[in-house]
Amino acid sequence: MKEVKVGLIGFGTVGQGVVKLLRENQKDIMARVGGKISLAGVADQDWKRPRKVALEKKLRRKDARQLINDPEVKIIIELVGNFPGVKEMILDALKAGKWVVTANKALLAKYGDEIFSAAKKYHSEIYFGASVAGGIPILRALREGLCANRIQSIYGIVNGTSNYILTRMQEANLDYSAALKEAQEKGYAEANPEADVEGIDASHKLAILIRLGFGVSLPLEKIFRRGISRLSHLDLQAASELEYRIKLLAIARESNGLLEARVHPTLIPENSILANVRGVYNAVYVKGNFVGPTLFYGPGAGMDATASAVISDVMELARNLLQGRPAGRVKPEGYEALNPHQLKLRPMEELIGPYYLRVWVLDQPGVLARISGILGKNKISISSVIQRETREGNSVPLVIVTHQALEKNIQKAVKEINQLKVVLNPVQLIRIATELE
Amino acid sequence: MKEVKVGLIGFGTVGQGVVKLLRENQKDIMARVGGKISLAGVADQDWKRPRKVALEKKLRRKDARQLINDPEVKIIIELVGNFPGVKEMILDALKAGKWVVTANKALLAKYGDEIFSAAKKYHSEIYFGASVAGGIPILRALREGLCANRIQSIYGIVNGTSNYILTRMQEANLDYSAALKEAQEKGYAEANPEADVEGIDASHKLAILIRLGFGVSLPLEKIFRRGISRLSHLDLQAASELEYRIKLLAIARESNGLLEARVHPTLIPENSILANVRGVYNAVYVKGNFVGPTLFYGPGAGMDATASAVISDVMELARNLLQGRPAGRVKPEGYEALNPHQLKLRPMEELIGPYYLRVWVLDQPGVLARISGILGKNKISISSVIQRETREGNSVPLVIVTHQALEKNIQKAVKEINQLKVVLNPVQLIRIATELE
Repeated sequence: MKEVKVGLIGFGTVGQGVVKLLRENQKDIMARVGGKISLAGVADQDWKRPRKVALEKKLRRKDARQLINDPEVKIIIELVGNFPGVKEMILDALKAGKWVVTANKALLAKYGDEIFSAAKKYHSEIYFGASVAGGIPILRALREGLCANRIQSIYGIVNGTSNYILTRMQEANLDYSAALKEAQEKGYAEANPEADVEGIDASHKLAILIRLGFGVSLPLEKIFRRGISRLSHLDLQAASELEYRIKLLAIARESNGLLEARVHPTLIPENSILANVRGVYNAVYVKGNFVGPTLFYGPGAGMDATASAVISDVMELARNLLQGRPAGRVKPEGYEALNPHQLKLRPMEELIGPYYLRVWVLDQPGVLARISGILGKNKISISSVIQRETREGNSVPLVIVTHQALEKNIQKAVKEINQLKVVLNPVQLIRIATELE
Repeated sequence: MKEVKVGLIGFGTVGQGVVKLLRENQKDIMARVGGKISLAGVADQDWKRPRKVALEKKLRRKDARQLINDPEVKIIIELVGNFPGVKEMILDALKAGKWVVTANKALLAKYGDEIFSAAKKYHSEIYFGASVAGGIPILRALREGLCANRIQSIYGIVNGTSNYILTRMQEANLDYSAALKEAQEKGYAEANPEADVEGIDASHKLAILIRLGFGVSLPLEKIFRRGISRLSHLDLQAASELEYRIKLLAIARESNGLLEARVHPTLIPENSILANVRGVYNAVYVKGNFVGPTLFYGPGAGMDATASAVISDVMELARNLLQGRPAGRVKPEGYEALNPHQLKLRPMEELIGPYYLRVWVLDQPGVLARISGILGKNKISISSVIQRETREGNSVPLVIVTHQALEKNIQKAVKEINQLKVVLNPVQLIRIATELE
């Protein structure tokens, strides 16, 4: 029986899932790979922590170098997460001729260029299917299944935590902090939820999607980013009334030869398929110039689902090793590393689209006239207005949806509106995506 | 510049899409493949027919053999459809050492064993990503992206024509023949719609999905098949009232070690993501034992979308040819050709699930008691009942949803109910799928 030896670095949630999967699906894996994938060892700094998956003592290692330096080990699976020294570990593994599988989105988003060029230099492989949208094979779809297309747009719900919070805010009419608390109790949100709710995690995934879909290597700070923590359940209700849902979307879109790259809460039509992605699920909508609109849906995180993506990558590499196939069948970072269309980034102030504005105003005569006057002066025309009943004395939320407008003009108008004495809180501004089917 | 020559057989709708795509996305294709994919010629028997895509005279061939026998041609694209002689053409191309890309689902469903073993025998490749669900890379997902999983179930909306008809019956309250007529006028249904509306096309696709997902080679006649032509808009309305949608589903599901293989109209919960697949779109829901539920959505047919799938396959093969990689990286028919779990088919009468029954009865006292008595006698318990207002004199539609029941018992009960004098038409029986998320 032919065999490929694998070293696993990191025995956290996903690492345990990987070990469990290799055990439970061993028979299927062997039939599909044409040989055995066997675990040479698992490295973790802490073997005291209680774990769900048992691991025999002889497989436990304290130091990842024991695996990286083991000539028998052909594939290294890195599941350490975003810790110091991990980048060096991956680079050393590539240098040692190991083929590497990682789920480390933060690392790839920040140091993608360095890591991919090391893989090339050492004629090695780096696979990272688990880094975006967990178990959903979206990166493979961009790299292979849809490769005949020029990608036109990507809209991703790629952070399950924030999608869970938004779903609960909308469906159970919770406010943000109650929904967050619920997510934390269920283990869907961390004690410090910042990376999830402020769109940081989503921006890492967007950087990877942009690399594969558009062939553009984009520094993270170039991605416009807004989180969900300032949303009120009023916004989710008003969106519902207007037949929209609010989702935290990671958006990459080519418009008139420029690339938009942005993460922010977005109103999308309630009958679009993306609007029906609820709870912790993820989904990525991809539009190609020939295939048209497609959607890839599934669990975006979790021990088992992420292990599915990790091992699917390991299986491709193991099969190639067993068949004696050299590295480099496909470019790990996507085919368009050369950016053949020389796409440049669209500055955020040049974004064009409809907008949702919600503002608390004093319920006085002429307030709507003054606000719509400011919008008109800034070349923004109004598509619809909701003025709710007065609550809490004489303040009232006013919701305005605009027609297509320029972000620069919207920002200017918002500034002016915020200065009105009748406006009690800064305008809540949410962008609207209408092209979704 | 390195180059791979491709011969195209069949210049119908998809064939024209392929030529158009190769032209329009040439720059992207070259960047991704690392060389040029050039068209050596296009074979078609009829060059008089008007077409949407122009083709220079020097590329036109009357006889496919001119391409199959051309030693310069490395890849043959077969887009002839289900005509006599096509199987031989593909076998000859494989024998001649060509790598083959086809969208021919009927052929693969009927002669898969023969064609795949020829590919193996001649160390060749056969790719068929376009054969199921058009532009959606679902076969690639089963073969690679989800390959770490043991597949538990597949539920596919894989026939756009019938999904369009059902969507219109539900949303516009049309009856079947009006919705069919509309589909025909829009070019979504053929003059003779049988293959689409009777589930024949869907059963071909299901056979292919079963081969890839479960490793089982299933003769077409073993797939249980019911179409949508007997559905009434009453059923779609009643389903709506019960918070379901009706979809024509191709279902493959492992339950207690046996494989279910069936195509039929199915009630699914209206908030499931599959229920929100509208119009001519396709979607395939796949549940794996580690990844959990996933869904792949997109256009299931059409010139451009199908060309996307064909050329994505061609690009993988061309890249391998340019890099000097031999055939056989992955098994074309899926990894489980050996059926490692020795799955056997579940006889249809052993199916277990809830059922929807609709029956026109005379509005007389005791009718419901007699019908529910028959159900009870056959060990079928009732979950809910809708009795509509009387129309057309004294006949009335009665809708019953059962709890989990055995198909054999349901069939027996239906026979008995049909024999009641108060029953005016045979019972409309629709199976319900509840496990969809």
